[in-house]
Amino acid sequence: MTTIGHLINGEIVNEGSRSQDVFNPATGKAEKQVLLASKQTVEQAIACAEAAFPEWRNTPAIKRARVMFRFKELLEQHADHICKLIGQEHGKISHDAAGELQRGIENVEFACGAPQLLKGEHSRNVGPGIDSWSEFQPLGVVAGITPFNFPAMVPMWMFPLAIVCGNTFILKPSERDPSSTLYIAQLLKEAGLPDGVLNVINGDKEAVDTLLTDQRIKAVSFVGSTPIAEYIYATANANGKRCQALGGAKNHAIVMPDADMDNAVNQLLGAAFGSSGERCMALSVAVAVGDEAGDALVAKMQNAMTGLSVGAYDNASNDFGPVITCQHKDKVNGFISSAEQQGATIVVDGRNPEVEGYDNGYFVGATLIDGVTPEMDSYKAEIFGPVLQVVRVKTMQEAMKLIDDHEYGNGTCIFTRDGEAARYFSDHIQVGMVGINVPLPVPVAYHSFGGWKRSLFGDLHAYGPDGVRFYTKRKTITQRWPSSGVREGVSFAFPS
Amino acid sequence: MTTIGHLINGEIVNEGSRSQDVFNPATGKAEKQVLLASKQTVEQAIACAEAAFPEWRNTPAIKRARVMFRFKELLEQHADHICKLIGQEHGKISHDAAGELQRGIENVEFACGAPQLLKGEHSRNVGPGIDSWSEFQPLGVVAGITPFNFPAMVPMWMFPLAIVCGNTFILKPSERDPSSTLYIAQLLKEAGLPDGVLNVINGDKEAVDTLLTDQRIKAVSFVGSTPIAEYIYATANANGKRCQALGGAKNHAIVMPDADMDNAVNQLLGAAFGSSGERCMALSVAVAVGDEAGDALVAKMQNAMTGLSVGAYDNASNDFGPVITCQHKDKVNGFISSAEQQGATIVVDGRNPEVEGYDNGYFVGATLIDGVTPEMDSYKAEIFGPVLQVVRVKTMQEAMKLIDDHEYGNGTCIFTRDGEAARYFSDHIQVGMVGINVPLPVPVAYHSFGGWKRSLFGDLHAYGPDGVRFYTKRKTITQRWPSSGVREGVSFAFPS
Amino acid sequence: MTTIGHLINGEIVNEGSRSQDVFNPATGKAEKQVLLASKQTVEQAIACAEAAFPEWRNTPAIKRARVMFRFKELLEQHADHICKLIGQEHGKISHDAAGELQRGIENVEFACGAPQLLKGEHSRNVGPGIDSWSEFQPLGVVAGITPFNFPAMVPMWMFPLAIVCGNTFILKPSERDPSSTLYIAQLLKEAGLPDGVLNVINGDKEAVDTLLTDQRIKAVSFVGSTPIAEYIYATANANGKRCQALGGAKNHAIVMPDADMDNAVNQLLGAAFGSSGERCMALSVAVAVGDEAGDALVAKMQNAMTGLSVGAYDNASNDFGPVITCQHKDKVNGFISSAEQQGATIVVDGRNPEVEGYDNGYFVGATLIDGVTPEMDSYKAEIFGPVLQVVRVKTMQEAMKLIDDHEYGNGTCIFTRDGEAARYFSDHIQVGMVGINVPLPVPVAYHSFGGWKRSLFGDLHAYGPDGVRFYTKRKTITQRWPSSGVREGVSFAFPS
Amino acid sequence: MTTIGHLINGEIVNEGSRSQDVFNPATGKAEKQVLLASKQTVEQAIACAEAAFPEWRNTPAIKRARVMFRFKELLEQHADHICKLIGQEHGKISHDAAGELQRGIENVEFACGAPQLLKGEHSRNVGPGIDSWSEFQPLGVVAGITPFNFPAMVPMWMFPLAIVCGNTFILKPSERDPSSTLYIAQLLKEAGLPDGVLNVINGDKEAVDTLLTDQRIKAVSFVGSTPIAEYIYATANANGKRCQALGGAKNHAIVMPDADMDNAVNQLLGAAFGSSGERCMALSVAVAVGDEAGDALVAKMQNAMTGLSVGAYDNASNDFGPVITCQHKDKVNGFISSAEQQGATIVVDGRNPEVEGYDNGYFVGATLIDGVTPEMDSYKAEIFGPVLQVVRVKTMQEAMKLIDDHEYGNGTCIFTRDGEAARYFSDHIQVGMVGINVPLPVPVAYHSFGGWKRSLFGDLHAYGPDGVRFYTKRKTITQRWPSSGVREGVSFAFPS
Repeated sequence: MTTIGHLINGEIVNEGSRSQDVFNPATGKAEKQVLLASKQTVEQAIACAEAAFPEWRNTPAIKRARVMFRFKELLEQHADHICKLIGQEHGKISHDAAGELQRGIENVEFACGAPQLLKGEHSRNVGPGIDSWSEFQPLGVVAGITPFNFPAMVPMWMFPLAIVCGNTFILKPSERDPSSTLYIAQLLKEAGLPDGVLNVINGDKEAVDTLLTDQRIKAVSFVGSTPIAEYIYATANANGKRCQALGGAKNHAIVMPDADMDNAVNQLLGAAFGSSGERCMALSVAVAVGDEAGDALVAKMQNAMTGLSVGAYDNASNDFGPVITCQHKDKVNGFISSAEQQGATIVVDGRNPEVEGYDNGYFVGATLIDGVTPEMDSYKAEIFGPVLQVVRVKTMQEAMKLIDDHEYGNGTCIFTRDGEAARYFSDHIQVGMVGINVPLPVPVAYHSFGGWKRSLFGDLHAYGPDGVRFYTKRKTITQRWPSSGVREGVSFAFPS
Repeated sequence: MTTIGHLINGEIVNEGSRSQDVFNPATGKAEKQVLLASKQTVEQAIACAEAAFPEWRNTPAIKRARVMFRFKELLEQHADHICKLIGQEHGKISHDAAGELQRGIENVEFACGAPQLLKGEHSRNVGPGIDSWSEFQPLGVVAGITPFNFPAMVPMWMFPLAIVCGNTFILKPSERDPSSTLYIAQLLKEAGLPDGVLNVINGDKEAVDTLLTDQRIKAVSFVGSTPIAEYIYATANANGKRCQALGGAKNHAIVMPDADMDNAVNQLLGAAFGSSGERCMALSVAVAVGDEAGDALVAKMQNAMTGLSVGAYDNASNDFGPVITCQHKDKVNGFISSAEQQGATIVVDGRNPEVEGYDNGYFVGATLIDGVTPEMDSYKAEIFGPVLQVVRVKTMQEAMKLIDDHEYGNGTCIFTRDGEAARYFSDHIQVGMVGINVPLPVPVAYHSFGGWKRSLFGDLHAYGPDGVRFYTKRKTITQRWPSSGVREGVSFAFPS
Repeated sequence: MTTIGHLINGEIVNEGSRSQDVFNPATGKAEKQVLLASKQTVEQAIACAEAAFPEWRNTPAIKRARVMFRFKELLEQHADHICKLIGQEHGKISHDAAGELQRGIENVEFACGAPQLLKGEHSRNVGPGIDSWSEFQPLGVVAGITPFNFPAMVPMWMFPLAIVCGNTFILKPSERDPSSTLYIAQLLKEAGLPDGVLNVINGDKEAVDTLLTDQRIKAVSFVGSTPIAEYIYATANANGKRCQALGGAKNHAIVMPDADMDNAVNQLLGAAFGSSGERCMALSVAVAVGDEAGDALVAKMQNAMTGLSVGAYDNASNDFGPVITCQHKDKVNGFISSAEQQGATIVVDGRNPEVEGYDNGYFVGATLIDGVTPEMDSYKAEIFGPVLQVVRVKTMQEAMKLIDDHEYGNGTCIFTRDGEAARYFSDHIQVGMVGINVPLPVPVAYHSFGGWKRSLFGDLHAYGPDGVRFYTKRKTITQRWPSSGVREGVSFAFPS
Repeated sequence: MTTIGHLINGEIVNEGSRSQDVFNPATGKAEKQVLLASKQTVEQAIACAEAAFPEWRNTPAIKRARVMFRFKELLEQHADHICKLIGQEHGKISHDAAGELQRGIENVEFACGAPQLLKGEHSRNVGPGIDSWSEFQPLGVVAGITPFNFPAMVPMWMFPLAIVCGNTFILKPSERDPSSTLYIAQLLKEAGLPDGVLNVINGDKEAVDTLLTDQRIKAVSFVGSTPIAEYIYATANANGKRCQALGGAKNHAIVMPDADMDNAVNQLLGAAFGSSGERCMALSVAVAVGDEAGDALVAKMQNAMTGLSVGAYDNASNDFGPVITCQHKDKVNGFISSAEQQGATIVVDGRNPEVEGYDNGYFVGATLIDGVTPEMDSYKAEIFGPVLQVVRVKTMQEAMKLIDDHEYGNGTCIFTRDGEAARYFSDHIQVGMVGINVPLPVPVAYHSFGGWKRSLFGDLHAYGPDGVRFYTKRKTITQRWPSSGVREGVSFAFPS
């Protein structure tokens, strides 16, 4: 059985008395083991990152960027292998993994623009003969703690930008599917990154808590569930670090009566069931305004869903794969059952699908539930499975209130043709990422990603311009030269 | 005796069963009483601010800015009265109060540029037919908690910018000198600010804790000492708010052998003793590189200090006034004595100066201490009094290490004529605000203010561009229009 | 009879052997005379501006901005007088003059943000130990040549921004209505502008040509007709100056079948007839898509136009006033007649309206012409009168082609409710300023104004961010300090 | 003999009845022939570029950028071949050609950041319910006309950025050394650029004039001598195009008495003689302040120059190669002789050097002339050869006056250790690119390149942020949605 270790100071290190199985969720078999770093191993990585910092910080931004240019090439060359590693451990279908990887690469592309992004502001003559300017200097050693659902993309929201800004980095990926992350980190070494600038630590709470409390770590980026995000944010702050912690979501789409319904259904299919719904931007609630829209939506969705197929990662004709663990499968099924018990209608039931040849896989089929109400457990929680729930309301105002009342505020969408409705919605809705006829309004890499309310803890969003600001600290310099000795002295020195 | 109340929803409110004396520090007499708001009073203010938010948020930025244009005019018209109020309660001399007020007005001037500052980023065609843009929307109700030492300026670091960004505001000024702050807030109402947009609450820990825990408050800006800043930051974060908390300082100036010594001494006089050293940017440590520089510095400082006079605020020929309280006077004197006991040389002793006619005032004269070492208590702590300590080192590297090893990293300065020394210093020193021959490198209002290390908790600095970012949250909108029905439909409708 | 002179070096100068009558277009009487500057007078003004430049250039931007803050106050205080001067010489109704002035003041408000706007870009470590930054320095003496139709606003598009950027300025306003411009310039002196920084020269081609050829003038901003703009641009360029020259327009509104027709009609009334159509952003062509929209539009416009009244400036119940000269009245009437002769239908005929008590005024009433085609003279030319022409097309594509084929590309508008139509239009139309349900899409002062095609000659638009760039030149500085003599030398000097 | 054709619509086209020899300047032999495009050939290229525009314009910026990412890879892979082509036709030594290419690649790297660079400004609520934003749209077909001295770099200042902004491009490189340019263009096709987006036309005045007058060309970028730049600028403008035309230079270095003289000499060697001085940023005049500095400078230069070797491109131990043509060699020698005749001292004489095995090469050796005065012909003109002239002055003010009085204002430099002298110099000198101890202050690719005075015609500098602005036109959109029909209508439709 393969053992997955750590990347410290440019070398694979197989340290750790503790380990954990890594499963193939399509087969339910443990095919690898991942080592869980001890406090000492993490501290060793931090020490290496700290040692690498002074030289990396002094390396001109354009030279740091050139490592990213080469990294992008390598990621593209080795895309198939990365997608395979993702599929084996996460279960997502190859085309979905390729999409994830592409989104990650886009963050590398953005990082290549570091010299432009790091420019400070220069003011001549803030007073007579006095100039002032700002510099955005790196923080030092920073850490990223990332979730299982995007083992390639989410880490690449963080470390390329942090590193290109001059920081050194400790990445702790999810212990459920660490291989693709580790492989990607090795490509960055191959791209020319000096040893110690990026280190990958596999581990569990011991590793996390070491990162959160060690005084040498200056900042932490986290993506995961809201309760953990809240813990990470509080602990990191209490230990003098800056932190951005992204949590859970419950993303609603409003379907207006004037929506292009075929388009809406087509978009919702991918947004609700893609990656088995294990995305913090998955669209899990459709809010139909008016029963006419609601009836049409449910009928067309039901019809469209008959074509969906669930299965293993390496069959590209599958639409989505298993969920991540057996326990998670049970949890998703439980939410479907609870909705049923609490009065909703299971229009399409994805519980316990048959997937030939994969009897032990953690599969849940695409599920459509109508008649959901805000009181139901399945509405309140983030299910993180291939389940689309339909809530019916009478007015757009009612739909917006529903969204604003939910604790999460990550993404949302409206389907309409009407300019005014779209503008009113995007202006007022209390959600950080808004789509207009775009069901997964994930900002492109040169904008920034972040929810509102309890979906994000911190001032600055992830990646893009906010990411640059997060990974740098502002220094403001004010300069006056007190006398003109040299300049005028010369004049005195040669009086004729 | 005058009673000082609160400003809630545009009205002065004299609520509160508890109150506290407000002293004139030059006479030692309590001349006014300030009411201390109860939890209920604070909650009433929050409710008003919350009610005022939706309309203010929807007011175009240029209209919000125009209130600031009028506010600036009124501040300039009423400058003398504001300075008098500052002098009576804080004790700073009129010219110093005028300087403080001017710095505050500069932040209002910056706020007048809100329409430019609030621009988001627009990207055409992030995908085929898909546009994306960001908006910086206001947070809601935000709070400011401000210190005694700049009763006019520090509040104006906060509320003009927060308000012009579309937020409504609760200000809790220092209960030691609240009158100028309250008066300024009333001028903003006179300038046309709708009631409820700015509310001022006088109070103590009860008021502060209400602000920190009430769920309707979305953000808190704080300036004060480091232990309190740390408490504010942790508590605000734990209650789901964004926070920036500015704490203490110990600002060093390196005096290089090639410095223009007369200029350096002249600059240090104001930077060390101005406002009795009760500034978080006060220059309290001079690090002389080489004994030649050290001897010259001490001799010239000693000589220059003979001309300084301490006294009451209303005599413009005074250089600085009393410290804020009797207890604080004792504390400052205590630090001077401890330095003496621990082996330093009191070159100029400002303990217990004679100030004719003000026998009960809280005066400390300008004090110069030579031979200070990092181990002394007076070196470690922020004294916040008119005390300049001289440390002597052999090299610039040693001087920089001293600065980097101190827990605070607010401001620092180097005196030199040499371009290379200045550049090396500003690049590497672990301090957020750096002066080159500028002893008080307070960034101008269109840059941002913030220290490093334990001088600031939070990601974003105060005022300027960072202030805009702090008082707004990013919303990213992605838009696609699904079909060309209207556009092309017309074409079908009139086929010939 | 009042004589109108020049403002040179802060003084009113009544020089000039030549002069010209200034008429009240509502009465047709010459009430004042304006002096026409000779070459020598212009050169004297240039000399003063050049002499004032070095000190003004070195004045910190914030201090320059503060003159603009006071200027804004004075403009608001004296608004009534300025509007009266505009009305007397230009003829526009007081509410329209107030609107013009307000737009001018908005440019002053933008100029108040100079310290932020003038920031350069700073890059640390473009190479090892090498920094580089840009500064936006003023050009020197720059000139503005402005048209009769906005005697207050268009000059304020130029000189406040040019001056706040550190330039000194020569303004040559229209000789038809120079009084409000001159008065405004005097207010800026009162606001504290040093003498010589702003100079106003009244004159004709002699003055213009002097400005265009004098080597001391570094840049010229012009607004007027396209043939003159082209001449100005070529001549200024040939004389080594930078130039932006704004010319004519023919602004079309597309009225889509799904438009809110009542709103469209309401908007078009003001956009077509306001200021007698003497605006380069006047909406002079409505393109109705489909005959149903066309019929509704014409019927509703005809009805709405019955309520319009034309008359003298000082009756606020009038909707618009006379055109600028007798000759211009004849020209506008001539275009109406030519349309009639070439086959169009004069739905509402504004030729020779009765205006009681103003028999000799240059009045043309609101005119609506249907059935206009691209071949008609009235379609090709910019009429600059209160004439709205309706062209009927079958498709939106046809409407857009019409707009793109016209030589001008200043402003345009679409009336629709449909997001897709609006987005397609704004993306593809070859026009610089686009309105979506906004008939006069004049950019606000913090954006920039400029047409495409033959409506603007030059790279940079007027006012706003482009204005700052136009009035400054980029300087890029690259800095390395060659040795660490002072810094390390100290270390050698004291080896212990 | 090889024939060099054109690249039109992705294909090499060998059209043209006229042709011209391409020489190897080290051997003096014509080794290739370049075809000179007729008007018809140029028009064909323009037609292809125009046809390619609509689709390329609609391609998302990130996809355009990805072509540049691949282009960078290919340039790096084929660097040796490119440098060889440069060496064969231009004569510069391989290490110098590699440096040129690297500078070109840096502009490609900058172009990769297009999505970030093309962001417009978005303003919510410029009025109630009204939003406004700007877009930077491509111009259409644009042209570049480039000089012989940087056949790889200068074209890459232009076309990568123009193309990534969405334009299509016609490049006319120098007919003296066209091969590397053509090869580079073919690599961009290989990188995935659609046919017709970049076209290369070889030719002479006929081609240039076709580009300058054809109405389909929207903009022209030019680098060359000042008289031609002036012609290009005037002609392009007269034909309705935007234009930036970069001309000649005479770059001075001030050597202050406190300069690190060894460093200055070392820097001057490369800056004066590198690429045989055939650079518009070559440092051709050293202004020594004080005779002591002057004597030291001349002595140390003379000594250092003994180590320089001139020869053919393919021997990496050579420091620089021949000049471009036999005529140019004679011209450079003529300037040396004229200086001698007019009273200057030829300290090191590079006329007619012996270069073994290259008797017919166009070589001029490194030349140092002392005692040059502003009246000499060699001082006034741009020599464009390996000649460093020393002018001696008494004060820094005198040195600055010399620089400001020269007609050119491209680059300049000061050698000093003193912060004040450097700041005074960079603030006041009338030159666009300023070095502080940096003799060739060519801005990095993420800043912009441009001289002042008669060194550049146009408002915007080349490449970097100004380049983006030059290759795009601003469109400002103002949007209001007139009624809430869809949004509120729904509410009416279901009253309960």
